[in-house]
Parts: sequence; structure tokens; C-alpha cells
Amino acid sequence: MLQAAGLKPNAAHVAGQGGDPGAVATAAPVIRSIPMRKAMDENTLLAWAMNDAPLPKVHGYPLRLVVPGWVGSASTKWAHTLMVLDAPFKGTYMTNSYIVPKFAIEPGQKMPPDVVSAEAWPIKSMITSPAPNARFKGSQRITVRGRAWVGEGEVDRVEISTDEGKTWRRAQLARSGDKYAWRTFTFDFEPERFGYVSFLARAWDDRGNAQPAVPYWNPLGYFWNGWHRVGVLVEA
Amino acid sequence: MLQAAGLKPNAAHVAGQGGDPGAVATAAPVIRSIPMRKAMDENTLLAWAMNDAPLPKVHGYPLRLVVPGWVGSASTKWAHTLMVLDAPFKGTYMTNSYIVPKFAIEPGQKMPPDVVSAEAWPIKSMITSPAPNARFKGSQRITVRGRAWVGEGEVDRVEISTDEGKTWRRAQLARSGDKYAWRTFTFDFEPERFGYVSFLARAWDDRGNAQPAVPYWNPLGYFWNGWHRVGVLVEA
Repeated sequence: MLQAAGLKPNAAHVAGQGGDPGAVATAAPVIRSIPMRKAMDENTLLAWAMNDAPLPKVHGYPLRLVVPGWVGSASTKWAHTLMVLDAPFKGTYMTNSYIVPKFAIEPGQKMPPDVVSAEAWPIKSMITSPAPNARFKGSQRITVRGRAWVGEGEVDRVEISTDEGKTWRRAQLARSGDKYAWRTFTFDFEPERFGYVSFLARAWDDRGNAQPAVPYWNPLGYFWNGWHRVGVLVEA
Repeated sequence: MLQAAGLKPNAAHVAGQGGDPGAVATAAPVIRSIPMRKAMDENTLLAWAMNDAPLPKVHGYPLRLVVPGWVGSASTKWAHTLMVLDAPFKGTYMTNSYIVPKFAIEPGQKMPPDVVSAEAWPIKSMITSPAPNARFKGSQRITVRGRAWVGEGEVDRVEISTDEGKTWRRAQLARSGDKYAWRTFTFDFEPERFGYVSFLARAWDDRGNAQPAVPYWNPLGYFWNGWHRVGVLVEA
């Protein structure tokens, strides 16, 4: 659509504006822009339907952006305007929200002057089963299940540690479905002793990034992707 | 000394009683017992001198036990009585204090019936330099220094991670001095970018035990030995 409209050579960013009613009447309109390379990606959509039906209102009826793999604020709902710009849009939702420090800062500090816009999600995984503090009989095999995803690139593998990060073993990672879809994983564990045991999940992407033990702190709290830890009790 | 006194075949534990004044006049006397194998170890001492001088009062003058590598309560100060027993001593400092669950329990739970006495320290390390949140110029090499120790066996190696547990590199571990003495380690790091960077230290003993990312929780809070993490700021 952007190509059909004609893009000038200096087109750099595309801003979407939606009809967010806003909880505060005087608040600035919610406008976020994304770089042209992401706007032109074949997976970035202007969507008016979902599952062969019109979009539900809560999902942005009648029209919304879908910018997969990126922070949700890029996917403007109730879209009514697209602006092609020669630079990132300047507005409070670009300069004061959805930003992270360009260089990791000391935990607890204020936002430094040097920031970047929050874009793609880093590699992340979650254990969805068992539930925290679930109880098992000692003779039972425990199957750990979960999901892994990453904003750009691919999930390469998921590892589970049952000894608090000393050793890691590969989980079974389901085949890749649609691009950007999460990947399910499973890991079978035969308890060797009674008592509390924890499962740590750590996913890697195909660029060598792994979930960290402790994610870098940032003032607005984005992109938390530390190892997910679920403990269970193995009873006699 | 125990051999000179003569030990019966069923001698199993040795209890030390000291002259602890006690903050509460009605409190039970502080009596702890240790197994015969530890009592007969050549490194377990009845000490009356330190650094060629009588023991200072605060260190147990005139006589104390030194049970190296074990929780401090085993090293009875102001010792006046040793009792050879055919089983662990039964008293509040054996049955209600200095105990840990035999099997790891769910965090927050009460002490279960099945417990063991706190004995040797697990493998542990600490970063002693740099200080948390220290600041460095980007061109500066950062030397991480610390100590590692273990209650029984030997420290095998210390590893440092500068990427939140994704990869680990060996620190330089100083040669072993006296048995039970801590080992110093150093690790040189050349910053590759500005910003906050953390150092994680993890020691391994010669039995394959490593410090855990998260130590097993126990109601009395003993033996915390999780990875030590110190973050610093690399400035332009």
C-alpha cells in the first residue's frame, strides 16, 4: 500500500495514529512510528479481519496495524492515519514512553539522555506446566511444558536446568510453524530423590542470544526476559 | 586426647560444652556434638593459643574447639567439658537449631520432621572487588578479585560470567595454602562497550558441586551460597 501511494527517497519512518479514546481527554494522541524496513516487511500488515471475520472492537476494528515481533504499541489499533516521515516521529509516545537506555545503566537510575525506541522482543521462554509448587509422587515422570519466542530471527533451542543453572539439557522444541509464532517445548524429568526441585528454562535464538539469569534493568521495565524458574515438590 | 582418654567401641559423637554466659539466664546450655570421624580428624583442634599468644577472650579463652570447615557453632568457645556419646547429643541446640531439612522443601514451609544437623559449608565464593556500582573509564581493564572456600574437599575452580550466566570463563585461582583456607581468585576483564556490566562468580569443588543460581531455601536460612553478582558502570 505504501508503495502504491509512492514513497519519496527520504522516507524513513511510518507513523500510525489510531482512534484510542484515551483515559485522559487532554492526553496527546497515541502516535508511534516504525522504520521503513519494518513497515515494508511482508509480515507487517494493515489488518481488517481475523479468523475470517471482521476484527473485534477490542482488537482494533475496523483497521489496525500488525507489526509482529515488536512491542505491542507499534501495532496501532483503530488506525485512521499513516504518516510517512523522514525521521522518527517526535511525540511523547516516542520520546518519553517505549524507550530504553542505549547503554545498560545502573539499576535504580533515571532514564539517561541517550535512549533507543523499544522495538523487537528479545528471546524469551516461559514454563506453562507444571504450576509452581505442584506436587508429584516420586515414581511419577514430570513433563515440563512451555513456550519460547523471539521478536526477530528464530528460536534456536530451549534448555532446562534441574540443578539451579549448573548443567542444562535440551528440551524437545516443536517444529517452527508460522513465522513469529511461539514454539512449544517439552522436557521429561525422572526425579531421583524426594524434595523440592526447580526447573529453569532458558531459550536461545539463532543469533546466539540467550535469556539472562538477571535481565538488564531499565527504568520503564521493558523486555524482562530472565530465566523462568518453577519449583515443584516430589513426595514419597 | 580422646584416644589417650580411651574410647569405647560404641563412641559415636563428641559433645562440647562451653561457658557461654548466654543472654538469657534460663536458656539451655549451648551443647553441640560432632561425629567421631570429624572429632578425630587431625585438623580438629582443642586450641589454647593463636598466633603464638593465648586466645583472646572473644575467641574462647582459655580453651576452645576448632572444627574447621563446619558451621561455627561446632567450634565451642570457653570449652570446659567434652562428652563422648553413643549418639548425637539431644538438646535444643541439636534438635531445634543448626538443622536443615533432609530433603529440600517448598520455600516458606515450616521445618519438616526429617532433618539433618548443619555440618560442613557448601562451596561458596564472593567477589570482594570491585565494589557494587563502582565506576570505570571505558579504556580501563577491570580486575575482579575474590575468595572461594568449601567446608570439605577442595575448591576446584572459580568461573566468572559477564553475560548473566550465558557463558563462563575461568578465573585465576591462587594455589592452595593451608587446608580449609580460602583461595583468592582474580579475573581480568576488558570492557567492550559502555554501560552497566555485571560479574557473576561461581565456584566448583572437587566433588562436582557448584554454587547454584538460587540456593535451596531452608527455614533457618543456613548455607546461602548462590552466585555472587556485582555490577559496575563503564563510562566514556
